[in-house]
Amino acid sequence: MPVKFNQSDLEQLEQRFRTALINNLHGYKPLTLVGTQSKEGRDNLAVFSSLFHLGANPALIGMVVRPDVSPRHTLTNIRDTGLFSLSHVSASQAKQAHQTSARYPEEISEFDACGFDRYFTESSPIPAVSGSPVKIWCSLQQEIPLTQNGTHLIIAAITHLEVEEKMLREDGSLDYTAVDLVACGGLDTYYTGERLFQLTYAKPDRQPEER
Amino acid sequence: MPVKFNQSDLEQLEQRFRTALINNLHGYKPLTLVGTQSKEGRDNLAVFSSLFHLGANPALIGMVVRPDVSPRHTLTNIRDTGLFSLSHVSASQAKQAHQTSARYPEEISEFDACGFDRYFTESSPIPAVSGSPVKIWCSLQQEIPLTQNGTHLIIAAITHLEVEEKMLREDGSLDYTAVDLVACGGLDTYYTGERLFQLTYAKPDRQPEER
Repeated sequence: MPVKFNQSDLEQLEQRFRTALINNLHGYKPLTLVGTQSKEGRDNLAVFSSLFHLGANPALIGMVVRPDVSPRHTLTNIRDTGLFSLSHVSASQAKQAHQTSARYPEEISEFDACGFDRYFTESSPIPAVSGSPVKIWCSLQQEIPLTQNGTHLIIAAITHLEVEEKMLREDGSLDYTAVDLVACGGLDTYYTGERLFQLTYAKPDRQPEER
Repeated sequence: MPVKFNQSDLEQLEQRFRTALINNLHGYKPLTLVGTQSKEGRDNLAVFSSLFHLGANPALIGMVVRPDVSPRHTLTNIRDTGLFSLSHVSASQAKQAHQTSARYPEEISEFDACGFDRYFTESSPIPAVSGSPVKIWCSLQQEIPLTQNGTHLIIAAITHLEVEEKMLREDGSLDYTAVDLVACGGLDTYYTGERLFQLTYAKPDRQPEER
């Protein structure tokens, strides 16, 4: 049986229930740690689940930042330096990643407070997370403020990336289960994946096949 | 061991390998079927994995539409009527959902071609997918064209939703595993989730606990 909610039902829901429901509503989200650095050289790490694909060539990625709930240091640092790193989260790192959402004072780095080691590549001053199976370094292309609710869309170019060899398949796709990659539901629920199948390119005159 | 790619490596990759790599790069994506209707009343169904959360109050959702690869009928219909439905996909529906990405001619509805039954609610003329565990009806708020690569961001308000009772938890969150909800990797790989844990709100002075 379905449970139904219209707009007026949603408005009347208890606030925490509504927040949980709507945040869970669109399904599995990718989970990543965003690394940034302030003008003064202090680094910051914050968990995000709002990453989305924008294009493969040029390689572009989008991200939603909510100034009211996300650690504001991330947005400030991205604006100041134009740079950030993304470190995806394995199951063994999920609780530490969640802990980065606590409101630490600006002078405390979540790398230290949450027990993550910094990982540097020669091509960027921004640290990623050591042990993360997918590390991506990005440069800010555009910031789009949304008038509806004060969120900001970050559009960024991928400048450098590193993926664990064991998850990289021959066709360029990544097997998330090989590194226990974590998905997020809403704000506080964590999942690992179980691979169902990879399907052939869909054509009108035939059914998709597992490949 | 990590495999490394810089911007120049990415540009030189074989096109299909690069497309797969970059499309897989940000991790698990939600999977949904977008239902629309043309001005003439013909319906259309297309699989999308680019949904993202924008806000709980008002309930807002974002979606990326690529006019060059997504079925263009979806964008045209959303512009014409301002309305669309979202039907999330269970494991048993994943192959059918993938098949909606085949390029059917405009006069053929993917509901019929891919074997999905239409589900109507009294509050919208747009059909959703019968048997889908999460059905959402949306109204277009804003379309943002991105100059970088011709993609369009769709910002929409949630006007009505239905979720399977067995996945709705007391706190308003949804248990995706109760309905075998599917996540997507890249363009062609499908996963189900395994629930790790739900954690308490993060505070600087304590570690998160399972709840």
